[in-house]
Amino acid sequence: MKKNELKKIIFKIFKKHKLVHKHSNICADAIINAEIVGAHSHGLSRLKMYCDRIKKNLINPKPKFKIKKYSNSILHLDANDSIGFVAADFAIKQAIKLAKRTGIGIVGVKNSGHYGLSGYYIEQAVKKNLLALCFTNAPPAIAPYGAKKSLFGTNPISFGTPSGSTAPFIFDSSMSKINRGKIRVAAKMNKKIPFDVALDKNGNITSDPKKALEGVQLPIADFRGSGLAWMVDILSGVLTGSAHSGKVKDPFDDFTGPQNVGHFFLVLKHNIFINNYLNRIKENIKNVKKLPKIKGVQEIFYPGQRKFKKYKINLNKDILISNKIKNELFELLND
Amino acid sequence: MKKNELKKIIFKIFKKHKLVHKHSNICADAIINAEIVGAHSHGLSRLKMYCDRIKKNLINPKPKFKIKKYSNSILHLDANDSIGFVAADFAIKQAIKLAKRTGIGIVGVKNSGHYGLSGYYIEQAVKKNLLALCFTNAPPAIAPYGAKKSLFGTNPISFGTPSGSTAPFIFDSSMSKINRGKIRVAAKMNKKIPFDVALDKNGNITSDPKKALEGVQLPIADFRGSGLAWMVDILSGVLTGSAHSGKVKDPFDDFTGPQNVGHFFLVLKHNIFINNYLNRIKENIKNVKKLPKIKGVQEIFYPGQRKFKKYKINLNKDILISNKIKNELFELLND
Repeated sequence: MKKNELKKIIFKIFKKHKLVHKHSNICADAIINAEIVGAHSHGLSRLKMYCDRIKKNLINPKPKFKIKKYSNSILHLDANDSIGFVAADFAIKQAIKLAKRTGIGIVGVKNSGHYGLSGYYIEQAVKKNLLALCFTNAPPAIAPYGAKKSLFGTNPISFGTPSGSTAPFIFDSSMSKINRGKIRVAAKMNKKIPFDVALDKNGNITSDPKKALEGVQLPIADFRGSGLAWMVDILSGVLTGSAHSGKVKDPFDDFTGPQNVGHFFLVLKHNIFINNYLNRIKENIKNVKKLPKIKGVQEIFYPGQRKFKKYKINLNKDILISNKIKNELFELLND
Repeated sequence: MKKNELKKIIFKIFKKHKLVHKHSNICADAIINAEIVGAHSHGLSRLKMYCDRIKKNLINPKPKFKIKKYSNSILHLDANDSIGFVAADFAIKQAIKLAKRTGIGIVGVKNSGHYGLSGYYIEQAVKKNLLALCFTNAPPAIAPYGAKKSLFGTNPISFGTPSGSTAPFIFDSSMSKINRGKIRVAAKMNKKIPFDVALDKNGNITSDPKKALEGVQLPIADFRGSGLAWMVDILSGVLTGSAHSGKVKDPFDDFTGPQNVGHFFLVLKHNIFINNYLNRIKENIKNVKKLPKIKGVQEIFYPGQRKFKKYKINLNKDILISNKIKNELFELLND
């Protein structure tokens, strides 16, 4: 489907579900972007879920943001159960404004929801020549080190900086060894999953995707990834006043209340310490890229570089939509 | 040896090597602390190296700090080739002051050196009921994802928060899958190292510690750890004006100039967004700790909890010193 056409449809769907014009636009843009970069699990596949939650009053389509200013650099946003896209878009824009004025901007968000890709917000800051760091918590997905029950979300860490080239440096990584989607695909295809990425319900390592789906995913790098996921839960959940320690609700399965996801955005100007950052980061990336490569590797990519390539290639292509999604779009339009 | 006695000796050694009274004290305390928590590779084993570098004018025993204030929340420190302990101690104390006044304190440091354990500085902030995050770069140790030559340092990420209990929550982790010391021990004992933690000099995975010593260590979690190590290099090295992208000098092997390590400290008040953080973090930790455990695990520890236990146990014990170190201490005293 043509991107413009698809965007109009998504926009209409959100309008129909009572989001205001501006918010419908923000959501449609975020979903289209996820499709263009190939992050389909964060795109159209979630549209029905968002609409379901709006209908059940678990996402507030007309949120009243409560903003509390701590200082010229620090804001707190109570997103009033807004859809995550809108809360995160507001928060990063505020953090950018604060950083431009004072060198640093920090925005903490509570009562938000799933906002799609962290890197999408980081990119807004990087496009304005700023550095940015963002953390968000998420519904239980991975087991803390030593536990056999999941509690931390995928809890991504995302960091971005201008790179000195057209492709921005955007690191955006979940703290889970494997994503649940991959386990589901393996189960469908009767394939094994790699060793040591998931536990069965009894807490034993399993390569059987079906057993893994009943069990838990493991954090990257054992106690290290567990500690990083914990840090993300603290900064985005505990510090902001959001749900934390496993209390963020799963948007697909849990309709007992709003998700109450928390986010933490930090934006920095690149000249807070020195004046030649942009030359230095260019040199930094050049030095890494020119290293000798292991067999089979043609190029050392910096984080975000591949995604940018994909984006460029897909930007002028139509978006492929499965029949399942097409039917969903049709139903949502006529809801 | 009694701790007081040992501290006096280390203090004397630094004084003898021209550090001022206060700086000698800071260094002695940091080294004693590393020994107490069992981080021997960051303790006495480095003392001779520090003194060697002072004698060769690669560490400046009487540094003149240049401090540049960007705002009430942001400072830059040119540490003038100070020993890392002194630069980091000054930087964290400044970051704490800034955070107490404005909610957030950021200090970037250039022209510093190896400062021991990141968690040691984070602890200073946590003891004052603040949250803290710190990054430092280091000499080449791990290969960027796809490369067969090391460039990033162990580049630890360290994060701390008051925990609501006596043991502070302090996460402090290198981005390397294995530390070089462990590879050296395996080589000495003719033991294999785990699969997939190191490459030989040709870029092939090896379990042979001797081949690994000629090759490179791998980052945790493949491209994810590589990205995190890169982020640390950018924030602590590129942004602060320090050496970066493999240019930080190895303190043991490279006497061609000062190390020029960079650090980045960020300290936050816990009430910037909400008022009941301390109760919330206590609840957060409780919820994680009470999860069902995998077989063989008695207790789920939060980061820093084990180290604190070790600290408490060792605090009233003597410090064991090998003959090699005793000889070094003797020689350094009589240098």
